[in-house]
Amino acid sequence: MELSNFCSIFCLQFETMEKQRRIFIQKAGLIAAASAFTPQILLSTNRSQKKKLGVALVGLGYYSTDLLAPALQLTNNCELRGIVTGSPEKIPVWKEKYGIADKNVYNYKNFDTIANNPDIDVVYVVLPPSMHAEYTIRAAKAGKHVWCEKPMAPTVADCEAMIKACKDNKVKLAIGYRCQHDPNIQAYMKVGKERPFGKVRMVTSAAGYFDGRTNHWKQNKKLGGGVMGDMGVYALQGARLATGEEPISVMAQASTTRPEIYHEVEETMMFQLEFPSGARASCQTSFGINMNHLQVNYEKGWLKMEPHSSYNGNNGSMSDGTIIKFSIPNQQAKQMDEDALAIMEKTDLIVPGEEGLRDIRVVEAIYKSAAQNCVVKL
Amino acid sequence: MELSNFCSIFCLQFETMEKQRRIFIQKAGLIAAASAFTPQILLSTNRSQKKKLGVALVGLGYYSTDLLAPALQLTNNCELRGIVTGSPEKIPVWKEKYGIADKNVYNYKNFDTIANNPDIDVVYVVLPPSMHAEYTIRAAKAGKHVWCEKPMAPTVADCEAMIKACKDNKVKLAIGYRCQHDPNIQAYMKVGKERPFGKVRMVTSAAGYFDGRTNHWKQNKKLGGGVMGDMGVYALQGARLATGEEPISVMAQASTTRPEIYHEVEETMMFQLEFPSGARASCQTSFGINMNHLQVNYEKGWLKMEPHSSYNGNNGSMSDGTIIKFSIPNQQAKQMDEDALAIMEKTDLIVPGEEGLRDIRVVEAIYKSAAQNCVVKL
Repeated sequence: MELSNFCSIFCLQFETMEKQRRIFIQKAGLIAAASAFTPQILLSTNRSQKKKLGVALVGLGYYSTDLLAPALQLTNNCELRGIVTGSPEKIPVWKEKYGIADKNVYNYKNFDTIANNPDIDVVYVVLPPSMHAEYTIRAAKAGKHVWCEKPMAPTVADCEAMIKACKDNKVKLAIGYRCQHDPNIQAYMKVGKERPFGKVRMVTSAAGYFDGRTNHWKQNKKLGGGVMGDMGVYALQGARLATGEEPISVMAQASTTRPEIYHEVEETMMFQLEFPSGARASCQTSFGINMNHLQVNYEKGWLKMEPHSSYNGNNGSMSDGTIIKFSIPNQQAKQMDEDALAIMEKTDLIVPGEEGLRDIRVVEAIYKSAAQNCVVKL
Repeated sequence: MELSNFCSIFCLQFETMEKQRRIFIQKAGLIAAASAFTPQILLSTNRSQKKKLGVALVGLGYYSTDLLAPALQLTNNCELRGIVTGSPEKIPVWKEKYGIADKNVYNYKNFDTIANNPDIDVVYVVLPPSMHAEYTIRAAKAGKHVWCEKPMAPTVADCEAMIKACKDNKVKLAIGYRCQHDPNIQAYMKVGKERPFGKVRMVTSAAGYFDGRTNHWKQNKKLGGGVMGDMGVYALQGARLATGEEPISVMAQASTTRPEIYHEVEETMMFQLEFPSGARASCQTSFGINMNHLQVNYEKGWLKMEPHSSYNGNNGSMSDGTIIKFSIPNQQAKQMDEDALAIMEKTDLIVPGEEGLRDIRVVEAIYKSAAQNCVVKL
């Protein structure tokens, strides 16, 4: 796509967003939402090429190949400059497609020498979850900022070690929660915080899809598989973000309808959450069921989203007639541009490591509840 | 309302229903649904006055006063002829309003003499749930057919005794599940049975409202209060009727945000159900939360209803574009007319006592799960 074409499309999209933003604010009376919905991406459109952050993708699986690399071509604040892979056959393909220099290609053994490469500012860890801690810590020690895909890591201990390593090495750590960069999701987060309909009383939240694969890391316990970390964090975030609170107890059940595939990890997890305000949530996640919906019942109204955590098209409505339907050109591009800008301007990240840790703390309790068949306090 | 006016409105409504019925059948391909949606009420419009069943309402609280007595005025197959009450001050009001003869007025002491009253064919038990078994059994022994409000009774043992008493005395027992007479609910029951979208995989179902009362039987354990029986059976039925299956395990949590009111019984119950096919359900019910929605995710599609168990306006949609939106003049009138017709024509009741028992069997397990904080097998 020509840059001029892209700019035209983007400006058109932004005009639409701006109109939608006004409708949303007007109808919901959420004035404070205004600043949050101004796409930070625009602030950097005049930034010089030199000031773009160089990004290296670690792990060239589906998400890097089909989502992140194409999205990086749409960013203003960052540039795909490096790859780290254990599959040599992928190197020429990526070099040709994205013009990656030889010196910016790494394998898992020589990865630490990235410390000496001024082209790379950010290492984006897109590996199976069990490898997130190791590569985040190695990247931090190499002095690179880290973006890490969700789930942040299999354990709270891993997450804490990742946060500490980044802090010790004075680099930033962002978790790849694209949804929190999506104004549709930000809309229901605002309602949870500003409470135009009173307190949140009940949230139901579901996120799942039918995964037909049989030998992926998602089915492998050692690699950090299981639906709870992969899709479950969306259902969990639906409840956490809609309430604006952290759960104080969980009760969970794990199950599978395909034990020949899901014998190491769960295919489906259902969990009920209790929040300090008295709000409750009922969440479902599955590798066997296509579902993606959120409903919030407040004291004096409701909010619905379907889908609520997709790559695009998230939308919803509220009991006062407000429609939530923001279009964004590319969710991952927005996420990476905003994360890059926060790093460059030394402002707060939208999703720092601490936010990933909050989820994993609950995920650990959910696994404990499912294993012990009891309520687990947090 | 003049009878002629009512007939016009009814015919108009029926025309609309008939059109909607065709749309539904056409779109969902559910040919077999046709006969179920032919309103049986119409079959009896030419029935002579003499063949109407005489109904006595036992208990003259809100539901009798505001819903059933007015609905009885709209029926073709039954007639409000008697009342049974412990509140003498209500008698003149009801006599005047509904022309009830002195000889058809009973109190709880002389109730059994109703056996000698040929005006009364059916006794409709509209008392607090703890009294359902006693009055159902007394009515059966008096040789009267029984309609009993939901929840059928607090325990499985009560339900079984009620069914036995009616069988022994050769009278019919119907449970007042108005929803199962509603073509909107019958629509999703059909989908569960005929499975145009494949197997049911996940149901989420919620039924609740904010009850501001502080001293009602609903808050009194001895009288059979608690939200699980009152509103919870709607959430439970959402799952049972949408799957067409009976649960094989439950996991439940009871809670309250108003312990000063809900200290004997729960304000909120959340429960997860497992079905033989592998389908799962997540249900919520509350006296503190306005909510009334159902979502079913099948192998290849979805169905949504909101509301799904209201007195009127139940409606929904399916992933193939089918809209579920049948208008019926009065839900309770349809229920009573259909139940009366089944008795007169000696056909199967839509909701016999056995169906009420099926719910109470699960309700008992839900209370056990909530008390013991564990999964209970059924």
